[in-house]
Amino acid sequence: MHTLSDLENHQIRLASRPVGLPARDNWRFTTEPVGEPADGGIVVKTLFLSLDPAMRGWMNDVKSYIPPVGIDDVMRAGGIGVVVASKSPAFAVGDHVSAMLNVQEYATIAADQMKRAGLFKIDPRAGTPTQWLNVLGMPGMTAYFGLLDVGQPKPGDTVVVSGAAGAVGQTVGQLAKVKGCRAVGIAGGQAKCDWVVKELGFDACIDYKGGSVRDGLKTHCPDGVDVYFDNVGGEILDHVLARINRKARVVICGAISQYNNTAPVQGPKNYLSLLVNRARMEGLVVFDYADRYPVAIAELAEHLKSGRMKSKEDVVVGLESFPETLLKLFNGENFGKLVLQVAT
Amino acid sequence: MHTLSDLENHQIRLASRPVGLPARDNWRFTTEPVGEPADGGIVVKTLFLSLDPAMRGWMNDVKSYIPPVGIDDVMRAGGIGVVVASKSPAFAVGDHVSAMLNVQEYATIAADQMKRAGLFKIDPRAGTPTQWLNVLGMPGMTAYFGLLDVGQPKPGDTVVVSGAAGAVGQTVGQLAKVKGCRAVGIAGGQAKCDWVVKELGFDACIDYKGGSVRDGLKTHCPDGVDVYFDNVGGEILDHVLARINRKARVVICGAISQYNNTAPVQGPKNYLSLLVNRARMEGLVVFDYADRYPVAIAELAEHLKSGRMKSKEDVVVGLESFPETLLKLFNGENFGKLVLQVAT
Repeated sequence: MHTLSDLENHQIRLASRPVGLPARDNWRFTTEPVGEPADGGIVVKTLFLSLDPAMRGWMNDVKSYIPPVGIDDVMRAGGIGVVVASKSPAFAVGDHVSAMLNVQEYATIAADQMKRAGLFKIDPRAGTPTQWLNVLGMPGMTAYFGLLDVGQPKPGDTVVVSGAAGAVGQTVGQLAKVKGCRAVGIAGGQAKCDWVVKELGFDACIDYKGGSVRDGLKTHCPDGVDVYFDNVGGEILDHVLARINRKARVVICGAISQYNNTAPVQGPKNYLSLLVNRARMEGLVVFDYADRYPVAIAELAEHLKSGRMKSKEDVVVGLESFPETLLKLFNGENFGKLVLQVAT
Repeated sequence: MHTLSDLENHQIRLASRPVGLPARDNWRFTTEPVGEPADGGIVVKTLFLSLDPAMRGWMNDVKSYIPPVGIDDVMRAGGIGVVVASKSPAFAVGDHVSAMLNVQEYATIAADQMKRAGLFKIDPRAGTPTQWLNVLGMPGMTAYFGLLDVGQPKPGDTVVVSGAAGAVGQTVGQLAKVKGCRAVGIAGGQAKCDWVVKELGFDACIDYKGGSVRDGLKTHCPDGVDVYFDNVGGEILDHVLARINRKARVVICGAISQYNNTAPVQGPKNYLSLLVNRARMEGLVVFDYADRYPVAIAELAEHLKSGRMKSKEDVVVGLESFPETLLKLFNGENFGKLVLQVAT
């Protein structure tokens, strides 16, 4: 029988900080033995890793809502894994867990690191492992609290969401429909737009690669925009600001169009629309809502089970493909929540 | 004895829409007889007119929170006047009133226009006529509801306000002090900064013409910024966004640095600070609070009377000097609330 120390742990570390898009030489591949867990600790075998736009920010040496990833550290990533060794009374071998496992095959988590890693047992009956990284994971939590707490949609409101076929966007639009709103997506490409409307039930979806977002908003938001959930920033944010209603809420969740800028961020030229319309633009960081994740997970799992909501994950296989796979987020290639399958 | 029709009414009309700063040929001077009031109507002799940054927006042919001034219309302006003829049971000759009198010597207001003109009797015991255009007028109302309702300051918060020696800014900072906050102004020139600190009691004031706003904020807001009341936009907004605290409130009241742009408005490059800090940027239009003006006026009049608050008006004499006087707002020359004295 193998012991843990016979196993190799392949890892991907941050070798240097990228300028613009992350390149191959910003990464370094390492191999280490897997250690036995300390008293109270566990070892988790990574099954799936979540690939998120926020990762790009973590690579910059800038103070933000969490510290940057250090040079030579294993790249930070959330994931789903299975416990393969446990000296913790709270976890048994075979338990499925969600945690910051980072970009590696095995994560050894000490007792005093469990809280910081956001470690918790997942219920496989509520959703598949990849759904636990999507609707039931951070993107779902972000959509849920961003839309409901910050966006405060009322039945009949028009809710617009960019990155509509992405991880957060797909849940924002479907949840808006559940809450009685008109949901209009913005996504890149006809295939994504068709899926968002036909499969997810959005009222409309504007293809920013295929036509004018400005015209699309005029056509599909005849009564203006009450809530805009922004994942992209840039020109699209300005187009929507030009169409907001009085007392509109603009939720700033991300700005993927700006994350690889080597020039300064493009600020919203139309921000004075907030003044004219007595409207609000507000940012959120999902970790603030950690106490309420269980409530959100329970509601979203119920919507999945009943078929009121669907989810789509874009699964790429192989730890070694992480550097190239991450880039799919920034050129808009991913279709659904982007997930890296590391093991089965 | 003179009748009204013997009197001449000198007026200034919008002749054409300016590009950039309003120029002399954007205005046209006209003279008309003063008509008798219709049944239920009144005639008001203009004493003082309020000159406001918002006037620049009213001159553009753009849908906003109120319609633009039409070409050949008398330029819109709020003012204080005295009733010189009345066929209204609600107003007697000699009453002092506040209303949209526009840039002219006499305003004839029909019964059905009184509400739209915002006509009301002022109490000369609560403040001087120019104070009724300042702390007790629109700037005071804007400061009061913008700071308290939108900014929601808590005792101990650091409140920063730009245009600190201007009409709105002077009241924002003093009211912040009354509410137990640290008040830091941003103004142009040492004289204004000295006045804001020594006369009005702000904790500090940063001279944007004399040094780095970025360094000034570091020095004078060591604990960051909880509420920013923005009257100017542009670079200064970006500097403050870089210093906001978690859950900060940014009140968008105006953007005087951008009003005469011939290039597109400069959007805030640092708007993603809203995300990192879970902060909010929100616009206001003071007219929304009209129902609550009496409460605000009562409180502010009490602060003036007790000496807890002061006010400063920059009074220029003569209707005919309106075009040049308006420009003082845009080059930062006015010191205190800018008022045009039309008659005594």
